[in-house]
Amino acid sequence: MADEVVLLDLKASPFAARVRIALEEKGITYESKVEDLSNKSSTLLKMNPVHKQIPVLIHNGRPICESMIIVQYIDEFWSQKSSLLPSDPYRRAHAWFWADYIDKKIYPIGRNLWASEGEVRESSKKDLVECFKVLEEELGEKPYFGDESFGYIDLALIPFYSFFYTFEILGELRMVAEFPKLVGWGERCLQKESVSKSLSGQKEVYEVILQIKQKLGIQ
Amino acid sequence: MADEVVLLDLKASPFAARVRIALEEKGITYESKVEDLSNKSSTLLKMNPVHKQIPVLIHNGRPICESMIIVQYIDEFWSQKSSLLPSDPYRRAHAWFWADYIDKKIYPIGRNLWASEGEVRESSKKDLVECFKVLEEELGEKPYFGDESFGYIDLALIPFYSFFYTFEILGELRMVAEFPKLVGWGERCLQKESVSKSLSGQKEVYEVILQIKQKLGIQ
Repeated sequence: MADEVVLLDLKASPFAARVRIALEEKGITYESKVEDLSNKSSTLLKMNPVHKQIPVLIHNGRPICESMIIVQYIDEFWSQKSSLLPSDPYRRAHAWFWADYIDKKIYPIGRNLWASEGEVRESSKKDLVECFKVLEEELGEKPYFGDESFGYIDLALIPFYSFFYTFEILGELRMVAEFPKLVGWGERCLQKESVSKSLSGQKEVYEVILQIKQKLGIQ
Repeated sequence: MADEVVLLDLKASPFAARVRIALEEKGITYESKVEDLSNKSSTLLKMNPVHKQIPVLIHNGRPICESMIIVQYIDEFWSQKSSLLPSDPYRRAHAWFWADYIDKKIYPIGRNLWASEGEVRESSKKDLVECFKVLEEELGEKPYFGDESFGYIDLALIPFYSFFYTFEILGELRMVAEFPKLVGWGERCLQKESVSKSLSGQKEVYEVILQIKQKLGIQ
């Protein structure tokens, strides 16, 4: 029996994008079911009753939740094709560390940038610069965070490349001038079809963020 | 050459306790170097320059950071003895999901309970009850979260058993009456020597929390 793979999805979500890229990397055929977060489907509520959030991967009827957990599941279940995580325990721990760093920093700081005002917003600008400095240093002269080939850390971070324009405008950053290695890495990743077909455009994301700010009543 | 294993440690830290339990479970001889967080050692700053936090496992000179990443590294490197994670990809994803839930909920909510005042503190009481309800339901009638034997999820949660008395007093909970399965599970885990020798006592943790409250000037 062929595997039945369904993704509870949302186009602009960086977390859903991670899963789409992993599925593309592995060449897995899947059905994308786009959720309306203002009116969540009964499937979403049943499949992720704890967090009630996308993305959820439903594999032969069984749900897997949380984006980087889904990515690792995909990597392990469909292990015969292009591994995303290395096999060496130390290199694996290194990849988990940076994916965890990205999860703990980029989205929460980004959210403070567009969903807060006053001091919180100002400090998020500094936090974002600090965070990009750390990532730029970690990348160094390597083509990818996963060294010679696109891997788990790259996959964790690349959906936020779509937010670079938003960060430039709202965070008053000059990404190319300040973080040339990160920008170059993002362009390199985008040459992969698995990535380019899974990501939203930077201007498109900025429009979504502006709509969110408007809904929240934030200037 | 024998493995050189050093743990940058702190007795009352639930995160360090996770690593101590994993090392005990695997029967690994290690050196504990207790850190003074008000005067962090040059070793800690060098080995975890990003977060500057304990625990850090230094294995043959190379650092691994973040407690559940360290636990999984230990499980994979010393794979010949008592696996903490299952081998089936779906069951592994299930274990990661719950460890992640514990990380995202228990400590942050707990911190709001003892390091905040007013509305934040009040809402943390409700959040804690909600969180324990979810965990009590997930445990169900199983002896351990990892089913028949102590595993990855149990290891993620058990250090917070030491905080149950603190939660009772500050959160106005009656743990035995409201969450009998969780309390029974905690007592069961404590019968394991790897756990009992790694955890702080409940009253001892409460004293530490009172000292923290006093330092923060919180009633």
